[in-house]
Amino acid sequence: MEEEVSVLFMPSGLRGQVPVGTTVLQAAQRLGVDLESICGGQGQCRKCQVLPQEGEFPKHGITSRADHLSPFTETERHHQSKKRLKEGRRLGCNARILGDLVVDVPEESQQHKQHIAKAVTAYDIQVQPALHLFTVTLPEPDMHAPISDKRRLQQALVSEHDLPLMDCELSQLRLLQPALEKASRQVTVAVYQFEKIIAIWPGEKKEVYGLAVDLGSTTIAAQLCNMITGEVVATADTMNPQIRFGEDLMSRVSYVMMNEGGDAAMTQVVREAFNQLARRAAKTAGIQVEDILDMTVVANPIMHHLFLGIDPTPLGGAPFTLTTDQTQVVRAAELDIHLHAEARACTLPCIAGHIGADTAGVILSERPDLADEFVLLVDVGTNAEIVLGNRDRLLAASSPTGPAFEGAQITSGQRAAPGAIERVRINAETLEPRFRVIGCEAWSDDDEFAEKSKKVGVSGICGSGIIEVVAEMYLSGVIDQDGVIGPVEGKPTDRIVQDGRTWSYVLHESERSIQITQNDVRAIQLAKAALHAGARLLIDRMGIEKVDRIGFAGAFGSHIDVKYAMVLGLIPDCNLENVGSVGNAAGTGARIALLNFPSRLEIGEILPKVEKIETAIEPKFQQYFIEAMAIPHKTDAYVELGKVVNFPPPKPKAESSEGEERKRRSRRRRRA
Amino acid sequence: MEEEVSVLFMPSGLRGQVPVGTTVLQAAQRLGVDLESICGGQGQCRKCQVLPQEGEFPKHGITSRADHLSPFTETERHHQSKKRLKEGRRLGCNARILGDLVVDVPEESQQHKQHIAKAVTAYDIQVQPALHLFTVTLPEPDMHAPISDKRRLQQALVSEHDLPLMDCELSQLRLLQPALEKASRQVTVAVYQFEKIIAIWPGEKKEVYGLAVDLGSTTIAAQLCNMITGEVVATADTMNPQIRFGEDLMSRVSYVMMNEGGDAAMTQVVREAFNQLARRAAKTAGIQVEDILDMTVVANPIMHHLFLGIDPTPLGGAPFTLTTDQTQVVRAAELDIHLHAEARACTLPCIAGHIGADTAGVILSERPDLADEFVLLVDVGTNAEIVLGNRDRLLAASSPTGPAFEGAQITSGQRAAPGAIERVRINAETLEPRFRVIGCEAWSDDDEFAEKSKKVGVSGICGSGIIEVVAEMYLSGVIDQDGVIGPVEGKPTDRIVQDGRTWSYVLHESERSIQITQNDVRAIQLAKAALHAGARLLIDRMGIEKVDRIGFAGAFGSHIDVKYAMVLGLIPDCNLENVGSVGNAAGTGARIALLNFPSRLEIGEILPKVEKIETAIEPKFQQYFIEAMAIPHKTDAYVELGKVVNFPPPKPKAESSEGEERKRRSRRRRRA
Repeated sequence: MEEEVSVLFMPSGLRGQVPVGTTVLQAAQRLGVDLESICGGQGQCRKCQVLPQEGEFPKHGITSRADHLSPFTETERHHQSKKRLKEGRRLGCNARILGDLVVDVPEESQQHKQHIAKAVTAYDIQVQPALHLFTVTLPEPDMHAPISDKRRLQQALVSEHDLPLMDCELSQLRLLQPALEKASRQVTVAVYQFEKIIAIWPGEKKEVYGLAVDLGSTTIAAQLCNMITGEVVATADTMNPQIRFGEDLMSRVSYVMMNEGGDAAMTQVVREAFNQLARRAAKTAGIQVEDILDMTVVANPIMHHLFLGIDPTPLGGAPFTLTTDQTQVVRAAELDIHLHAEARACTLPCIAGHIGADTAGVILSERPDLADEFVLLVDVGTNAEIVLGNRDRLLAASSPTGPAFEGAQITSGQRAAPGAIERVRINAETLEPRFRVIGCEAWSDDDEFAEKSKKVGVSGICGSGIIEVVAEMYLSGVIDQDGVIGPVEGKPTDRIVQDGRTWSYVLHESERSIQITQNDVRAIQLAKAALHAGARLLIDRMGIEKVDRIGFAGAFGSHIDVKYAMVLGLIPDCNLENVGSVGNAAGTGARIALLNFPSRLEIGEILPKVEKIETAIEPKFQQYFIEAMAIPHKTDAYVELGKVVNFPPPKPKAESSEGEERKRRSRRRRRA
Repeated sequence: MEEEVSVLFMPSGLRGQVPVGTTVLQAAQRLGVDLESICGGQGQCRKCQVLPQEGEFPKHGITSRADHLSPFTETERHHQSKKRLKEGRRLGCNARILGDLVVDVPEESQQHKQHIAKAVTAYDIQVQPALHLFTVTLPEPDMHAPISDKRRLQQALVSEHDLPLMDCELSQLRLLQPALEKASRQVTVAVYQFEKIIAIWPGEKKEVYGLAVDLGSTTIAAQLCNMITGEVVATADTMNPQIRFGEDLMSRVSYVMMNEGGDAAMTQVVREAFNQLARRAAKTAGIQVEDILDMTVVANPIMHHLFLGIDPTPLGGAPFTLTTDQTQVVRAAELDIHLHAEARACTLPCIAGHIGADTAGVILSERPDLADEFVLLVDVGTNAEIVLGNRDRLLAASSPTGPAFEGAQITSGQRAAPGAIERVRINAETLEPRFRVIGCEAWSDDDEFAEKSKKVGVSGICGSGIIEVVAEMYLSGVIDQDGVIGPVEGKPTDRIVQDGRTWSYVLHESERSIQITQNDVRAIQLAKAALHAGARLLIDRMGIEKVDRIGFAGAFGSHIDVKYAMVLGLIPDCNLENVGSVGNAAGTGARIALLNFPSRLEIGEILPKVEKIETAIEPKFQQYFIEAMAIPHKTDAYVELGKVVNFPPPKPKAESSEGEERKRRSRRRRRA
């Protein structure tokens, strides 16, 4: 048996075991990491540059050291001497992995084939932006009427465009006379909120752009929009580089508490990521970042405060006090975001210490405050934000689901990226699974699967896959209502294997084994219980029996099959027809706020009226939580899935055979 | 005869001839340059550090090279090795001058005994600033009412101080929670224009400060004011470091035209000077620069535009188009001025391409727009800005006087600094002069003069001294009405010496000879003709015969005896009782704008109504100018000075005696 070591790629978060001596490029390809290579690993193209990290990564059980890579090769030294290989970097095709390793894939080494987790939702937005363009031609200066060119510009805007008298940003005033000189005294100005001139260009200018950003704890997704037509001209996303400081929100706040300047470091990296996204989106759209004049941002409260450069420590403990819960508008440059020099940045308002501007985005996208019926909106990220209500009343809460739904804390879990299992079916008779991975259309039992999946491989299981596999395990009797895995009477299979005191279900076996362990099922149970309890608390508080409509927001929401969510009891019972994904509603909300200025005022008026339920101090939450741990007996979803409703009662655990014991050992070794 | 070389000290502009081998410190002391020395030139205190300049200084006819100083001494090398002598610097007491030299006296080597040219005028200003302080104590955060601390702050300001709901600068929002924690939830905020919170401090804060700056072509003078009491707590001034790029305005604009990035370089040095002034004033007052929250600036249009970072090139030629003639308010930080992070900077509006915010300051200080009688205001700097009018109508013009009134372009001219001759009397019978220098109370014919003037010496003649000496030369018959110098019949003297084809008047002889040459008189005639012609143009345009009141603004205005100004015909005839200095009216205007916010709005309303007269395109200006070259026959001032009104007719030039010829040669050699 080859010796294996752990490798974790940043910023994708993809990780796995590889044999000692594997090159970083091979490891990346095997794990589905986006690392470019043109020359096929010949050390020529220099595209596969990576940055090895040093330090402790306790969450991943990895101690990464520079000497966990083979020494520099002649090829690397050559490139280094020619300044083609930056300080500290290695060529992925030359450096071999000798020990546990964390490695960074720099922006320029990525091909950006990454799966766009937060897809753009088609949405009919009335384009009514905060900024408008006006083109005017100024009269020649006249020594007999010695007014300034600024005043001539103001007068032209008043007389030709019926605008009020407006001031102009100083940085742009500097450009006025050169622009007038360049284009025979014709200039185009961008006016912000009909209040101030924030940009001046020579001659006629017809297009300006805006960026709507959904800043998540794990993913940052940007939509680049034409501010005149409203069209989304490019999208770009990346992992939140703050992951280095802590995988989830609370560990990032802890990092701040433990490390002087930790908040500033996290603020810096997230702003750098914004700049990268802006540059990448601009490049895709074939425009200059300087043509981006407005930006809106949605984020949970901690990301929101860190992005604004505000210490989030008070958000890490009761009473979870926000510094600001209001819409903040500043110059993007003040946030070190480099767009047009006077580009504005607007963060949407937060609701409470746990319910952020991302939820404001969901509300802006779905407008439950305009609904007649009772709408339940659920945005599953690392926490689940829940909004319930109609035109009369809105309630909101945040439930501590943890990151299980995102594939974290799951043995073979991974983010939704090519190679991740996203759909699972288990044959109720044979208990044999079939599945589909992201990036491959074939199911695993199709003949062409081996061929078609070659490129992406099978690297792990993502959030929607976990929901499906656990639900299918329940429907096929592999787990009982309490979530306990065990052999099914009368259905012998080597898919169910003993793993110490508990059992696991083997979903896939090839070069890597993908299993669902008892701990995985527990993590999913805890997460879904938190979500369910939160929803129930709101329903309780609203004094209703049942909600009329349920919308799942976010990446998780767009990937999962809502029937499985209901089988597992993630959400309260509801007519299945009225349950569905609302897409990346938070991101859509950011785009609405970007393109439709009045909506910013509206959301500012809606939010203070939202009643906040703090789950941590609601006595009933704990009770609901415990009650929601079990898998519900019956919902509409069962019928929909065509399954028998008579489930076998909990079974005594059968002893494992000798052969199974052997397999189990082998599997455990690989996972070690 | 010792060989002499030229030395010019920056930023004071003081220059002179010194024997080869003189130390820089000795030269500085001889020329009245402010260069500190504690150890008496022993090379111990290291206070006299200077920075030799290299390059061509054509205005001064100096080519300065590093090897025009003696090589580094052991003492200097020792201090260098101990890092006590910065790169490029020399010890003034060790370095000996071997050739023509320009030398910079760094900020920290100055004792700041410099004569405060722009003194603070006592003025009764109603303190009604743009910013106000409010102290509030916020309620403890409450998880059941999860609003942000920002909202709690807003609510407290509304309920306790009856303020409107206000936004807060992001940079200050970051300080809110730490401040609340530090001072048991009590904070003080600074509110700008009752519109926005621009500063937050923990606990109670009672004092904030503002800076009013008069940015002249040659001098920058700052007044540090307590924004609560209105009191001037410190003043500081310095030479405008842009002098390096060109002595007068037009040569600075030329520099910009000829040198890529020249405007940015000038913008940078003037802003650095602002920062030095702020730090120095704050130190004097015993406060932190971070306690300065507001700033107002007056300046001529070119200084104004350069300060704002706007290329002034269009102001260098017709049609002299300003980029902005309006009040500009920006964050001081945007101008790289480091005060409080959110301190505001406000530049007063300009009137026309040649009439700047300094004139706006004069108007704000003198308010001719409120006068019943006709007021003529004259601000003599490098140009003379002239305002004429009353409550019904205001006219303004700028006259190209050149810098002669400031002591420039005059053979022995210098700025108003210790050692400069500022008062002159000539005995009408003997033609012997007596004078007084700045920094010494005794007249030159007093017994104690030698003793009392030892410290400051007699280094040159400043603007007010030149006016007096030329007027006295006229009154005593040394010059005729056309300004021609020549011997006076029946009054033999060796004070009047031939100098080539023309004659000079010897004002002082000691280690340096101070003479008034024919060229000096011509320079004064040109300057006063320009000033007079400008005033006459306005009087003409106004359709009046005579003005009722004349006010001299600026350093020149506060030093000259108005009687002499009238004898020379600088200003039109007026009842002498109604002619006087109005002090540093531009600086006072800046202070009024700083302390009284409504005045900023008022000046913004007054200026557009001011009628601008462009002297360059007024056909009559040239005619008036020529007519004003001669010295007027009779004004009230003659009577006041007690002089006989019968002046001798122009005289044929007498031949010089042999003795005089010898003296003359010796004098010319020294001046060479």
